[in-house]
Formats: sequence, C-alpha cells, structure tokens
Amino acid sequence: MVISMSRFNKYFLLKTDDVAEYVQEKLSFFPADAKFECKEIGDGNLNYVFRLVDTNTGKSIIVKQAGEATRISAEMKLSTDRGRIEAKILGIQAKYAPGLVPEVYLYDEVMCAMVMEDMIGHTIMRKALMNHEKFPLFADQITTFLVNSLLLSTDVVMNHKDKKTNVKSFINPDLCEISEDLVYSEPFIDYNHRNNVFSPNAEFVRKELYDDKALHLEAAKLKFEFMNNAQSLIHGDLHTGSIFINKEHTYIFDPEFAFYGPMGYDIGNVIANMFFAWCNADATIEDAEQRADYCNWIIDTIEEIVDRFIVKFKKAFEDNVKDVMAKTEGFMEWYLGTVLSDTAAVAGLESIRRTVGMANVKDITTIPDESKRARAERIVITLAKDYIMNRDNFKSGKDYRKAIEAAIAKF
Amino acid sequence: MVISMSRFNKYFLLKTDDVAEYVQEKLSFFPADAKFECKEIGDGNLNYVFRLVDTNTGKSIIVKQAGEATRISAEMKLSTDRGRIEAKILGIQAKYAPGLVPEVYLYDEVMCAMVMEDMIGHTIMRKALMNHEKFPLFADQITTFLVNSLLLSTDVVMNHKDKKTNVKSFINPDLCEISEDLVYSEPFIDYNHRNNVFSPNAEFVRKELYDDKALHLEAAKLKFEFMNNAQSLIHGDLHTGSIFINKEHTYIFDPEFAFYGPMGYDIGNVIANMFFAWCNADATIEDAEQRADYCNWIIDTIEEIVDRFIVKFKKAFEDNVKDVMAKTEGFMEWYLGTVLSDTAAVAGLESIRRTVGMANVKDITTIPDESKRARAERIVITLAKDYIMNRDNFKSGKDYRKAIEAAIAKF
Repeated sequence: MVISMSRFNKYFLLKTDDVAEYVQEKLSFFPADAKFECKEIGDGNLNYVFRLVDTNTGKSIIVKQAGEATRISAEMKLSTDRGRIEAKILGIQAKYAPGLVPEVYLYDEVMCAMVMEDMIGHTIMRKALMNHEKFPLFADQITTFLVNSLLLSTDVVMNHKDKKTNVKSFINPDLCEISEDLVYSEPFIDYNHRNNVFSPNAEFVRKELYDDKALHLEAAKLKFEFMNNAQSLIHGDLHTGSIFINKEHTYIFDPEFAFYGPMGYDIGNVIANMFFAWCNADATIEDAEQRADYCNWIIDTIEEIVDRFIVKFKKAFEDNVKDVMAKTEGFMEWYLGTVLSDTAAVAGLESIRRTVGMANVKDITTIPDESKRARAERIVITLAKDYIMNRDNFKSGKDYRKAIEAAIAKF
Repeated sequence: MVISMSRFNKYFLLKTDDVAEYVQEKLSFFPADAKFECKEIGDGNLNYVFRLVDTNTGKSIIVKQAGEATRISAEMKLSTDRGRIEAKILGIQAKYAPGLVPEVYLYDEVMCAMVMEDMIGHTIMRKALMNHEKFPLFADQITTFLVNSLLLSTDVVMNHKDKKTNVKSFINPDLCEISEDLVYSEPFIDYNHRNNVFSPNAEFVRKELYDDKALHLEAAKLKFEFMNNAQSLIHGDLHTGSIFINKEHTYIFDPEFAFYGPMGYDIGNVIANMFFAWCNADATIEDAEQRADYCNWIIDTIEEIVDRFIVKFKKAFEDNVKDVMAKTEGFMEWYLGTVLSDTAAVAGLESIRRTVGMANVKDITTIPDESKRARAERIVITLAKDYIMNRDNFKSGKDYRKAIEAAIAKF
C-alpha cells in the first residue's frame, strides 16, 4: 500500500512557489515538462489568486485559494466554506448561462482551492471603464446572464424540492453578514465606525444619510428582505470588479457571496456600478465632446440593461415557468414588478455603501479634483435615495435615465 | 467486547407489542418490574403514535414513530427526517415557551421515533370544541406561544448566523410540498383532483373559487411568500388537532411541518380553525340561547387572540430586538403590519382548503343537516375570500369580528 506523501493533504496558505507542484499533482492539464511561471494576481479582500503559465506552450490556469480571514483585517474571520459555494455555483451558472462564467477544473475541499480557466484576453471591467473603454455587447450579455442565472434557479421554474436542497447548500452566513453590515446597516448609522466618508462631504453625508430617519426605515425593511427572501440563487457581489470583459465577450466570476436571496440584488449591483463609471468619466475626461460621448454611452447602457432584462425575463418566464400557480394570469407581471422594485432599491444601497462605506470604489476615490469628486458623490447619493425611496416607480430603462438626469441637474 | 443484539438498530415499523421492550431498552423511565399496557392512539395521517402505561404505577409515556409513507396513501412517500425536525423544534419551543409543548425524552434517528411526555388530562382541542367546551385561558396561552416561538426565532432577535444555521437545519421539502399543494394550489384549481367538495355546494365552489381569477392571483402571490420568506421558525400545521387542552392549560404539539416560513402562517391557522368550531356549534347546538352563548365565545376568542397577539408582540419586540436596523423608528409597526396581513391571508387559505380541499375538518363534515352544512361552508368561503382579498385591512380583533359578522349575515 502506497501512503500518500502529498504536502497538500492538510490546509495551508499557498505561496507562489507551491502552485506549480500543486496543479501538477492535482490535474493533468499541463505536460510533465512544462516550464512554469507563477504570479499572485489577486487584489481582492478575501482570497489568494495565482496565475500559473507554462512558458513552453503559453497555456495558463488560475488557482484561487480561500484564506481563513480577510486580507484587510485578520480579525474578520471567514469560513473557507465560501470556496465550496463558489465552485458549486460556477458549475450551476455554467449550465444556466453557458460561456458567461469561467470553467472550473477542480475544487479541493482540503486546501479550499479552486483551479479554473484563465480568462485570457479579458480585463477587469472596472479598470476598463476607468480607462473609458466602451463594451457594446455588455448590456446584451449581462442581461442574458442575469435572467438565466436568476430566474432559472427560482421555484417558479425549479422543482420545489430541488430548489430547497439548493437553498440549504448555499446558506452562506459569513459572507451574508458582510453584506448585512456593509450594505444594509453601516452606511446609515456607522455603528462599527468603519465608514470612509470623503471629508468635504461630511456634512452632506450627515444630513442626507445619518439624519434621514425615513431612509433608515426603508433600509431596514430592505435588510430583512435581503436576509429572508430566498427567491433566487444570486451572485451576491456583482460589481464591475467581478466581471472580466473585452469587446466581444463577458465573463462573470467571483460568486463567493452567493446564496438564495432577492434577485434584484444582482441587477441593482450592476446598475449602481455602471454609474460609478459615469462619475469617473464625467470628472476626469478633459475633452468635452469625448466626455459627453462616453457619459452618454454609460447612461444608454444602464437604460439598455434594464429594458433588455425586462424583455428577456418575460420571454424566459413564458418559456420556463413550471409552478402551476405561477401560471396564473397577472402573476408574471406582479413578480417582475417586485424584482424591479428590489433592483432599484439595491442600486441605491450599493451606490451609497460604495461611496461612504467601508469598501469604496476606485472609480470615485481616484478622481483627483476634490470638488469634482465631492460633486460626483453628491450626485450618487441623491440618485441613490431616489432609487430607494421611490423604488416602486422604476419600471423601465427610461425611469432610470430620468432619475439620473435629474440627480445630475441638481449639482 | 459485547455485541449489541438490539432489534432496534435497524428501522422497522413498531407494533403495539414492540413498544414496551423498545422504551425499556432506550430509557430508564419505568421501573424494571413495570406491568405494561400499550395502545396505538394516533389518528393522524403521517405517523404511528403509541401510549405505553405501567399499570403498577400509572406512569405513562408516548412513542411517536414516523412512517415512510402517509397512512392515507402509500404512494405519498415522506422523508422520515421530519421526525428529527419535530424533536428538534420541540426542544427549541420548550425554551421559548416553557410548559406549552410536551417534553421530549429521546429522539432515535435509527427508528425515527420520539419518546415524549404523555399529556395527561388534556383533550384534542378540535374534539373538545366539537363538544362545545369553552377554554377561557386559551387565547392568553396560545398568544404567548405564538409570540415567543415566532418572534424569538427571527433575525430581528437572533444572531444572524445562528438563525441561518437554523434555517438550514429546518429545510423540510416533503412536508412543505404538502402545504404548497393542499393549501396554495389545489383548492383553487383542483389540478391533482383530490378536492373533496360537498356536492350541494359544487356550483358555489366553482363560481367562488375555481372561476375567480383575481383570487387565484392572490393565492399565487401568497404561495411564493410561503415558499420564500424564511422569517421565522413556524409550527407549520397549527390547527386545533395539534393542540391538547384543558381548562387550565394548553399544549401545542405535532410540529413536524416546521420550517422557516412567514409567521402569519401559524397565527392564521389558529384563527381559521377556531371559526370551524363556530360553524359546528352554529349548526348543531339546538338550544338557541346555548348556541348563541357558545358561538359568541368563539368570536370573542378570535378577537381576543388577535388583540393579545398584537399587545404581546409589541412588548416582546421592544424587550428582545437585537438587530441594529430593526430598532429604527417605525420598523416594528411595519414588520407587525406584514405579519398581520399574512395572518389574515393564511386564515383565508386554511379556511378554504379545509372546506373544499383534500383534508376536510370534522367540525364541518360531521354537521348532519345538509342545508346547515352547506350554509356553514358558504359562510367560511365568503369570509375566507374577504381575509385574502382585503388582507391589509385586518389590523385588530375588531376587524375580524366585523368580517365574521358580515359573512354570517349574507347567508
């Protein structure tokens, strides 16, 4: 009997030097005579991400390992179970939305590591948008992903027992707690004192967020909707840093926050993060014509995302609805209405928390001109409150366009 | 090494003759020289229930074993995991509402059997109500049970991670499917053709239930609320057959349908089932004065349940709320409002399904006079539709009284 001598039978944090040996032991992806180069490429807060390249063939692979604490604070411990959740949801999403998520080659429960496709030729969308690149196919591709991954995992479509098994499998307490705190609580009451408020806006934030009790009440309602509404298998962190993109193609990745929650959460995240790109472009593109052109493309894209989502949702609902009561006349319209209301609300919550909360976005924090940054943040917060307080009125792309234009016009 | 020779190391269905040996092997509850008598006492659809008595001492105990199929149809297979769920929730409820649930001495995962307290000196509440007995402490005791077991298991109060662990542990696909079909689908569209419609009311049921598309739409919305809203650890089947009662005391038992669902489900079940007792009394008590007296007691009790629930809920919320956002001014009132709306809706759904669905109630089916039974059912269905269609207007006990009186006055 051969006793396994593998170093990888017990969890430890991989270093750059370990990765080639690890991949060669676990997978027959590279030839035995591969000549490896490995780099740590991750800049996320929770994980360690390596790219391993065989310089002989140019073939490459990604290894992502879950750490036992966040990288910004060793005190924030996190269950490594999120690695299992991420590998599992990527498998499900690959079925629902083929080609729009990276392929997973291996998930290793011992090392809490996932080996996956290297999304070659794609850039992190947030960076690309900050370079003011346009992606004409994005609205079409992201709405296909959203409708398919969200609607097909509900009990409108799925066998109800299978759906409940999924709910159980994707209970994700540690990662949900992060969202409950950072999205649904701290931006309004700063009770952990972790907010990052841009000082020229301190008074504005106090008045518009900390002192607005009516806003707190809506945020509180939405927090319990987030925690209790096991509607759909959501990505849970679908910002533009979770998207790899080029002119032809979109990859959605990093779904470690996945759980069964309200589907508007994902759609709202996409919309909010697209508008951060508007803020960056508006404040940093010097040429007026180029600026207007790019800013218009962003607003057009937000409008297009909402409208395409609605069209595809209706079609997918008609094609896939299985639950006998969900076929009742008027049900689809009501159900879509609740999704659109949640979408607007989350677009508002994400807008606020990424502007004043613990995890700001570079689109805004890198705006060099203080007064332009202050203006951008005021526009975002004003727009966000409109999204939240009037969430039932956001029923089409045009409603978003109007709200965006109204918020811009105020500052 | 002693090899265990126990017959009970592998699941089989207990017979009356097996129970004494089983209990003596598993528990040191009875003396070694006990003289046993055992009877099967259950008349439920899902389980086998035995009472074991030591005739020397008079001590007794209950053994409840989960079968692998329902007793009404061998084709309806059911996971025996419901036994684990039942034993576990009884333990939790015993902490939240001490003295109001039977004590569990043992849960045996192999035999899927639970050994529990014999609720001596209590009667099944449905039978007692059909004997037109009054229980003056019931409204007080049931509302203590409802508020404590429901509110204290929410994430308003609980640590959010612990609550999610509970949600996972109480995922209950088989039993939820029964409710999804029998409560939320079949009474409206009869798609499994299992409804039991009282033939003199066939035309009334067709018009009022099968043809009412607006009602179907509300039932569909409520079905997804039931499936997706993981608000609270609910009993899931809180009708008057799940209550053992006497003049001084109430026991709530049989929580095998438990899962995390909307708390209005339990409250609505109590209200609906209390009104079935009104139907029985109104149709069968011959003396006019006695009839009026008992019927008034039922309506008073329904009013009292709603009002006491509201008072205790507010107090328990103030005393126990932990979530920082749930403390926002106005949140408690909003949250209670959603609970009361769900309560009215479920009171309606339960009223309908127990009148025309697969599982009728004896309160109504035993009414000997055909025209009186037909009238009772029409009152129930009319009232139920009011509960469902106008559920946001049921905010106090008085609102229920008015609706009940209006429905009665129509027939």
